[in-house]
Amino acid sequence: MASTFGTLFRVTSFGESHGRAIGCVVDGCPARIPLTEDAIQPQLDRRRPGATALNTPRKETDTVTILSGVEHGQTLGTPIGLSIPNADTRPGDYAEMEAVPRPSHADFTYAEKYGLRARSGGGRASARETAARVAAGAVAETMLAAFSPVEIVAWVEAVGTITAPRPDLTTLSRAQVDATLVRCPDPDIAADMIQAIETARDTGDSLGGVVACVCRGVPAGWGEPVFDKLTARLAQAMLSIPATRGFEIGEGFGATLMKGSEHNDPFTAHPNGGIRPASNHGGGIQGGISNGEPIFFRVAFKPVSTISLPQPTVAFDGSPVIFEAKGRHDPCVLPRAVPIVEAMAALVLADALLLQQTQRIPRMSQ
Amino acid sequence: MASTFGTLFRVTSFGESHGRAIGCVVDGCPARIPLTEDAIQPQLDRRRPGATALNTPRKETDTVTILSGVEHGQTLGTPIGLSIPNADTRPGDYAEMEAVPRPSHADFTYAEKYGLRARSGGGRASARETAARVAAGAVAETMLAAFSPVEIVAWVEAVGTITAPRPDLTTLSRAQVDATLVRCPDPDIAADMIQAIETARDTGDSLGGVVACVCRGVPAGWGEPVFDKLTARLAQAMLSIPATRGFEIGEGFGATLMKGSEHNDPFTAHPNGGIRPASNHGGGIQGGISNGEPIFFRVAFKPVSTISLPQPTVAFDGSPVIFEAKGRHDPCVLPRAVPIVEAMAALVLADALLLQQTQRIPRMSQ
Amino acid sequence: MASTFGTLFRVTSFGESHGRAIGCVVDGCPARIPLTEDAIQPQLDRRRPGATALNTPRKETDTVTILSGVEHGQTLGTPIGLSIPNADTRPGDYAEMEAVPRPSHADFTYAEKYGLRARSGGGRASARETAARVAAGAVAETMLAAFSPVEIVAWVEAVGTITAPRPDLTTLSRAQVDATLVRCPDPDIAADMIQAIETARDTGDSLGGVVACVCRGVPAGWGEPVFDKLTARLAQAMLSIPATRGFEIGEGFGATLMKGSEHNDPFTAHPNGGIRPASNHGGGIQGGISNGEPIFFRVAFKPVSTISLPQPTVAFDGSPVIFEAKGRHDPCVLPRAVPIVEAMAALVLADALLLQQTQRIPRMSQ
Amino acid sequence: MASTFGTLFRVTSFGESHGRAIGCVVDGCPARIPLTEDAIQPQLDRRRPGATALNTPRKETDTVTILSGVEHGQTLGTPIGLSIPNADTRPGDYAEMEAVPRPSHADFTYAEKYGLRARSGGGRASARETAARVAAGAVAETMLAAFSPVEIVAWVEAVGTITAPRPDLTTLSRAQVDATLVRCPDPDIAADMIQAIETARDTGDSLGGVVACVCRGVPAGWGEPVFDKLTARLAQAMLSIPATRGFEIGEGFGATLMKGSEHNDPFTAHPNGGIRPASNHGGGIQGGISNGEPIFFRVAFKPVSTISLPQPTVAFDGSPVIFEAKGRHDPCVLPRAVPIVEAMAALVLADALLLQQTQRIPRMSQ
Repeated sequence: MASTFGTLFRVTSFGESHGRAIGCVVDGCPARIPLTEDAIQPQLDRRRPGATALNTPRKETDTVTILSGVEHGQTLGTPIGLSIPNADTRPGDYAEMEAVPRPSHADFTYAEKYGLRARSGGGRASARETAARVAAGAVAETMLAAFSPVEIVAWVEAVGTITAPRPDLTTLSRAQVDATLVRCPDPDIAADMIQAIETARDTGDSLGGVVACVCRGVPAGWGEPVFDKLTARLAQAMLSIPATRGFEIGEGFGATLMKGSEHNDPFTAHPNGGIRPASNHGGGIQGGISNGEPIFFRVAFKPVSTISLPQPTVAFDGSPVIFEAKGRHDPCVLPRAVPIVEAMAALVLADALLLQQTQRIPRMSQ
Repeated sequence: MASTFGTLFRVTSFGESHGRAIGCVVDGCPARIPLTEDAIQPQLDRRRPGATALNTPRKETDTVTILSGVEHGQTLGTPIGLSIPNADTRPGDYAEMEAVPRPSHADFTYAEKYGLRARSGGGRASARETAARVAAGAVAETMLAAFSPVEIVAWVEAVGTITAPRPDLTTLSRAQVDATLVRCPDPDIAADMIQAIETARDTGDSLGGVVACVCRGVPAGWGEPVFDKLTARLAQAMLSIPATRGFEIGEGFGATLMKGSEHNDPFTAHPNGGIRPASNHGGGIQGGISNGEPIFFRVAFKPVSTISLPQPTVAFDGSPVIFEAKGRHDPCVLPRAVPIVEAMAALVLADALLLQQTQRIPRMSQ
Repeated sequence: MASTFGTLFRVTSFGESHGRAIGCVVDGCPARIPLTEDAIQPQLDRRRPGATALNTPRKETDTVTILSGVEHGQTLGTPIGLSIPNADTRPGDYAEMEAVPRPSHADFTYAEKYGLRARSGGGRASARETAARVAAGAVAETMLAAFSPVEIVAWVEAVGTITAPRPDLTTLSRAQVDATLVRCPDPDIAADMIQAIETARDTGDSLGGVVACVCRGVPAGWGEPVFDKLTARLAQAMLSIPATRGFEIGEGFGATLMKGSEHNDPFTAHPNGGIRPASNHGGGIQGGISNGEPIFFRVAFKPVSTISLPQPTVAFDGSPVIFEAKGRHDPCVLPRAVPIVEAMAALVLADALLLQQTQRIPRMSQ
Repeated sequence: MASTFGTLFRVTSFGESHGRAIGCVVDGCPARIPLTEDAIQPQLDRRRPGATALNTPRKETDTVTILSGVEHGQTLGTPIGLSIPNADTRPGDYAEMEAVPRPSHADFTYAEKYGLRARSGGGRASARETAARVAAGAVAETMLAAFSPVEIVAWVEAVGTITAPRPDLTTLSRAQVDATLVRCPDPDIAADMIQAIETARDTGDSLGGVVACVCRGVPAGWGEPVFDKLTARLAQAMLSIPATRGFEIGEGFGATLMKGSEHNDPFTAHPNGGIRPASNHGGGIQGGISNGEPIFFRVAFKPVSTISLPQPTVAFDGSPVIFEAKGRHDPCVLPRAVPIVEAMAALVLADALLLQQTQRIPRMSQ
């Protein structure tokens, strides 16, 4: 159950970090959408480990192959199988985990759930699983582009205690985000963030932070009431990303400090006719349904659990040990989390677009 | 799609605020669970409007009837139909909405989605819909109690800028929560909150706040990896509640300010054998799966959108109006949100319990 | 799980034969479809017990109430709650079942599944459950009529060994079907069928038979490949009706006796342009997808399990008993099965229509 | 939607006949089930084309690779990715299809559905898709074997007009079935069937037939009431197989010719205690739930649509053509359908086993 997301635009993912391959099946993508591997690879490259000095040295090219669902550069309407081989697997690095559950990793909980001791590299709980999401998200973005001028841009808003001011949400581009190594569009703050990450790495510690995201061009009317509110689906999508700890839409927790008279978004006449909200405290969603304004949300990532500093803990058998992570790890995942957040947002929106089509059926003439 | 929640323990809800009835069908509840209306009514009474001076004067007894799925006080394993009549409907109060979308309500987005002008009382987007959730949640709690010593206790942690200190999560009870009118277990802070709510009401304004929740007694191993992580399902569940704006698990956004060496939860030997986390920064969930520690999360509620203060806005036709809400409304929904948060948590946990049974099947002797 | 059908047009049913009510929630029906109870009641009346001398004397008016989802005679796009009270319940009639499982009923299998002894009237396994399907099917037909000129007509093709010739599938109407008490459009064969049913009733025995069904006006392109082929969904739908034992599409089992050169449907130019199949051995579906020709299928119903004749069997405790059914029962359910088959076909087609909308989205101009 | 089957034991398949690979993701298989490719390959070999003189000469080794979900020969509880490369693809063979829809194939309906002309080899509608089902079914059988002594054996009961007598359902084995080239356990009838198939091949024509199947060892209590009756799920599963036209359980359409007093299955005391049906007209299922007796059903396959005989038809543009199939094709698919029917039955039963676990949860001591 765990591995399928979406009602109509459905992604079913598979793969452990050290198995033969990771990948997914994207079912429900309409036919006749232009699609090749070239549309998918760039987002995978943004997520790829080993890209910069800030990242884990694990070397994966993360080259995606389309196994099915596409012919002559167009989708067929059938399931799109995507596969990404695992190249640089070193199970030896992880031998110790068989005996000792790593603090704040999923080794212990997986063992409790499945009755199996932690497997090499964290297996399915590894962040490597997110490559499949990024591939699927790129398909979703490609599909969205065929029908709607949706633009999804995420960026690193905070690393540890260093926070960047809100950029201009109406113009922010991925190019601006990628202009700094840490994917924070403010160059000065980015420099501070990079320094903080390098310090964390040098001290064997790790940092968390906040990824913010804006989705522009979403028309009013997407999202389903009650349990599948657009906010609810975005929240599920974001909290399903490894290491996430919180989600906020619009003013988020800040809204709790405002009065209704401050937080409410009144309406105004739209220059092109019709009406639109005059402000956007709600983050582009009212009653779980998009209102045509930019959708804005924030996602909290905890500091990376794998640290080089020695940690006093116990083995599965209860005996005390000092755990020192070997293996490969990032001191801060925030820059690589940017395309993952975008991918999950794209999956939510692609599903919402398809679901909304049932309200758009032409009526028979009487 | 919108109106069903859960994979095995499934709730399908129905009802508008001013139709004949609201209710739900609970499918997937195992047979032979003791259940009568008496197990459901108390939580409905906690959610009910008109209960205190702080709440909307709308008078609803919210009396639940079990239509099916139960015989001789026991569940049959078949769908449990629950119905709650709408008694005190006054469509006249809402006539103005046909022409003017209320600021920060769903009138505009529903009109965009469905092509229908806002209906009386907000219809499906009304918080009245949550009565069905509370009824379903009570069934979920009853089922959980048959199998597992799960205790779910939510409380009002903040109203506007007034925040209560964290109570003792291991002992907090619903009785302690209900000891104050505002459902904050700290009596002094509660008094401040009540005063703030009364001031908001008197000035025609409204307040938001934070509901916190602890789930004790959840064994390790519940929750599904990847898209259906327990965190993800809780986030979806909470953000599906009307007026919610954010969700945090464990340290939440505060985790982003900590280093890995501070945030990590090492393990310790359990007095009864086995091991357990020595601290609980993770909020009881690692890798999306429960670790046996109390699950702790927080939910942000925006200030109520319905305020008596005049609001300059425009009608659906773009003409300027000054909107002054009539009808009935709460200046602060936080106290009534407490059983709703508990209900949604119960639905998530009931589903997780059933899903985990597939890992507990006795093997054939070889 | 058991009680929800459909992917987009979803019905969740509830109710035991002797509880307070049966009913269902229809989720996914688009907004702005004209709908009142008057559109639903006629099909319920066709299914209702006690309507004719051929049927069970149980008196149920089966009056449906719309609880939600409709306002001012139009659907809102929200879940449509439908409730039908159980009026004439006589639990006393069924006391013996607590001790003795009725032959070929579900008393034994429900007891094995749920660990509960058979409940009065067969509970959820009673054919009374189908009233909810018929109500939902009427909603589906109403929705289909708004978008597509679909006509669904079922009839009794066979009762026991008496079989009617194939009527003209292009013109057969429900009025023609209802012209005979037994719902066989051939009056002479109908007379024979009625006589056979009366003989069965008089001898305390029962009969089965075949309901055939044609769906006209389904455009080409409905149905999903692989597991959700239109044939597969129709087969599931029909075999989910109590007492069904078989399903055939097009030539059905007869196709196994034909050669490819006999069974194949070549194409011909359509008078209005385009092409269409020149024959219809396939029953309107190829590769699981409708081809625009009438969809034709047959459903086998076993003879009614409840008979007055004494049956040697054993009680739950293994002791021999002679079981003689008291209670109320039909000697032949075929006439009442006609609207049930139509309802299930309508549910399948309504879902297929909505699913196909994802292939109909207008593209953005480049 | 189309490409996922099952509620808890879920298969999501992908692949066209002439793309890079076909395969599937099996999600929901419990952890710690012994599994290697060796458990899957034998059933694939039974389905493989080119195995005998009766089959298509297309040469595919159909070698399955487990991409994920298994480590050290045991399932991990995570999704099992399975991939089978397409080796012998000859798109040139199918060039004509771009212009001419093959009679009784899915070329026309896929074109109507997706707006794309028929692609090489029928794409997703090709029977090659069933290799993924057979692989998934082998995983399901492996899982079933860990928990329950379920045995599933299908065989060819009829080819065209040649029908074999019913074998002993309690002892029939796959070895007996495979003892003849045509997978009919009666050697004399098998010889007649082979002759008929060779005649059909030599005359450029094709044959259909009936596959029968028995499932032994299914305990009482599997299957869900109402829409997910075991009969309903089996019917969906079987009618989702390409070329199927009908499904019967137990006496099937033959039951319609019997009286209730003949068809009913009374109960008898079980030698080991408890009770069981004394006869099995119902085919092992009552009220949609297994009763512990062998489950018996039959599936009708139409004659193969691809024939060498010239067929007068029209092109997509309406112009008359004489279509003569080139490419590779079987004159009769029945022998190869045997493992496909077994696979689909295994998927239904695996899901039923997992779903039934929710009724088996130990209660807390009071």
